[in-house]
Amino acid sequence: MTRNLVTDATRIGADIDALSGLTDPGRPYTRRAFTPMFLEGRNWLTQRFEAAGLSTRLDAAGNLIGTRRGRQPGSGTIMLGSHSDTVPDGGRYDGIAGVIAGLEVARALDEQGITLEHDLEIVDFLAEEVSIFGVSCVGSRGLAGVRPDEWLTREAGSLTLAEGIEQVGGNPASAEDRSDIKAFLELHIEQGPVLDNQQFDVGVVTAIAGITRVEIIVEGRADHAGTTPMGARQDALTAASWMVLAVERFATELASGDAHFAATVGEFSMEPNAANVVPARVRMLIDARAERREDMVRFLGELEAGVAGIAEQAGVTASEPKIISDNMPTPCDAELLDILDEASEHVGARHRRMASGAGHDTAWMARLTRAAMIFVPCLGGRSHTPDESATNEDIAMGAAVLLEAVKRLDTRLQEIA
Amino acid sequence: MTRNLVTDATRIGADIDALSGLTDPGRPYTRRAFTPMFLEGRNWLTQRFEAAGLSTRLDAAGNLIGTRRGRQPGSGTIMLGSHSDTVPDGGRYDGIAGVIAGLEVARALDEQGITLEHDLEIVDFLAEEVSIFGVSCVGSRGLAGVRPDEWLTREAGSLTLAEGIEQVGGNPASAEDRSDIKAFLELHIEQGPVLDNQQFDVGVVTAIAGITRVEIIVEGRADHAGTTPMGARQDALTAASWMVLAVERFATELASGDAHFAATVGEFSMEPNAANVVPARVRMLIDARAERREDMVRFLGELEAGVAGIAEQAGVTASEPKIISDNMPTPCDAELLDILDEASEHVGARHRRMASGAGHDTAWMARLTRAAMIFVPCLGGRSHTPDESATNEDIAMGAAVLLEAVKRLDTRLQEIA
Repeated sequence: MTRNLVTDATRIGADIDALSGLTDPGRPYTRRAFTPMFLEGRNWLTQRFEAAGLSTRLDAAGNLIGTRRGRQPGSGTIMLGSHSDTVPDGGRYDGIAGVIAGLEVARALDEQGITLEHDLEIVDFLAEEVSIFGVSCVGSRGLAGVRPDEWLTREAGSLTLAEGIEQVGGNPASAEDRSDIKAFLELHIEQGPVLDNQQFDVGVVTAIAGITRVEIIVEGRADHAGTTPMGARQDALTAASWMVLAVERFATELASGDAHFAATVGEFSMEPNAANVVPARVRMLIDARAERREDMVRFLGELEAGVAGIAEQAGVTASEPKIISDNMPTPCDAELLDILDEASEHVGARHRRMASGAGHDTAWMARLTRAAMIFVPCLGGRSHTPDESATNEDIAMGAAVLLEAVKRLDTRLQEIA
Repeated sequence: MTRNLVTDATRIGADIDALSGLTDPGRPYTRRAFTPMFLEGRNWLTQRFEAAGLSTRLDAAGNLIGTRRGRQPGSGTIMLGSHSDTVPDGGRYDGIAGVIAGLEVARALDEQGITLEHDLEIVDFLAEEVSIFGVSCVGSRGLAGVRPDEWLTREAGSLTLAEGIEQVGGNPASAEDRSDIKAFLELHIEQGPVLDNQQFDVGVVTAIAGITRVEIIVEGRADHAGTTPMGARQDALTAASWMVLAVERFATELASGDAHFAATVGEFSMEPNAANVVPARVRMLIDARAERREDMVRFLGELEAGVAGIAEQAGVTASEPKIISDNMPTPCDAELLDILDEASEHVGARHRRMASGAGHDTAWMARLTRAAMIFVPCLGGRSHTPDESATNEDIAMGAAVLLEAVKRLDTRLQEIA
């Protein structure tokens, strides 16, 4: 498909080919934060930023930032970006599509001879994915001033996170005042099937879902599988199976409304797990995601009642659902959403509003400033796998939406401030 | 409870205390076949057999046999016994209750001044439990002439099974003609809760259930747990949960008849088993036990149809149930069952007929001769655990039933031959 855009799909494609090609040998696509390969990617990005006329620096939190100065120094900053690290054996687009799209916005502004009123910064956040230190969004939390201090002493091998941040060029002991940032926008592949299935070009993300992880332990009794009559068992697996189906039913009901909800039993293990023994114990970890907090509250209530009822019926004991982690949903900025809708219309992108079920740097930037994000389609929703696929044309379309949004923001930031 | 029996509960209790006390240091109750501790137990048993006037020998299959000669040489042998090996961290009674009960029958016959027409042999079968060689009932299969030749080359560390049998005193290269054995009876703890719950003294075992093991693999798709809408998933775990419940439902229906049936999903594992990924693959291993072969055939048919229907409904693929192992049920000898009922009546034992859901040496002896067995209660049905518990009085009652059955057999073997 040929689209008449100010952004250049071919140039974007060349950049994605080059950066995704920097991967651990024989292991596409692996560019883990804090590794030599990650720093190679950063070097390459720095050169590309500078070739586009951006001045580059590492901030205290370890983020790579390329700056395009605006006409009015001190009037504030518009920031675009995403991350260049990957999961192990990940995809070509998760993260870098948004960094390259930001770079493309800066290049297209140059080509159009546009100088913004505000400074424009393109950011590559440090360690968005869960890193060797067991935590995620290290750079965006750091920039937003919400990175827990105790994280700095986390260890991976002989390295602390503080040392890791220093090694990439950051200064973990200091914090920058970034109240100059007036708005943040991120482009990311959807990592879900909705845009691809429904043939939209762009998803305007209304909120980053809150993620709550809940553990349930079911305790039955390890009887002999041959000699214990069917009616005399306390089978932890059959009870847990009812619970798995209850989780799916509750989540499907909540998802039938107009807000995103999903719940998954992602971890499930059983003891003693021996062919001739009635299962005695099951551990389940539920991953629940809600665009609206009230949906999560309702889910947790239904889960607690459901688990207790099933346990009683099955004659087993079940722990009360134990909340392992609990993050609130992050609504995106309403004014930015309107501007992103307008920008999509302007460039002719078929767009829809949708929530993000996955976490993103945008959720942390929203603690600091107005923030929003857009999705571009990825094939079949596949992500975090070498099968991950998106088109350069779709990324160029998304970048064009960002560019148009930036232009509109540049003139309207004062009025919506 | 005091019962007026010809068998002696106190003497039985002392023997069980002594033999169960021979356990790997700090690890009650562990007397694994082919270990030094097992040979210590055999030495102790040999002395007790000889103290009771039995002449002892090791047979070619590695079984310890104590013989009490009958009045008519060449008229045949009645055999009683069970096994003295244990599972790791097993119980005090599984196996040895039946060996000691056999010994007690010989002692009580002496005390009553009874000489049988037939020879009486008390046997301690080699390696009834799954041993380090990965197979079970080594001694009873060997004695019955149905031990597969290829088993002899199985290895555990640097030892073959043939060498293991030699080390305990057997001669694996030879086979004895045991057509002299006219009947075999075994006493064993039930390893299930039926007698204990229903307050019976003795279970007269109608059949050893056949055991069929079936593997099912469910394949879904590893999607992102946050971004994949509930309706767009191929969740292997929710599909597998329906299958677990179908197994329970089919088995409960079959068990509601007058024959023993049980089925258990004993092994269950999932991939990738990661909190934020929709489950992609589940492997289940089903253990099904049937007193009647037609029930097993019906179960396997229902399972195949049920699994296929659930997979289609859930949008996943499931392998056809794959039969990993399949053993036929072994009915006990009808004449022996009648004699055991009569004997129970005679000694005043509350008795019922029931199937054995667990495998036993009796199933292999039934290939050679008339065979049957009785159960005595064990507390709560607990077995293969140090919690395993049975009373000396119940074992003495069971031994008295055996003694009475042996007396009746001794006079009736000719007429039922």
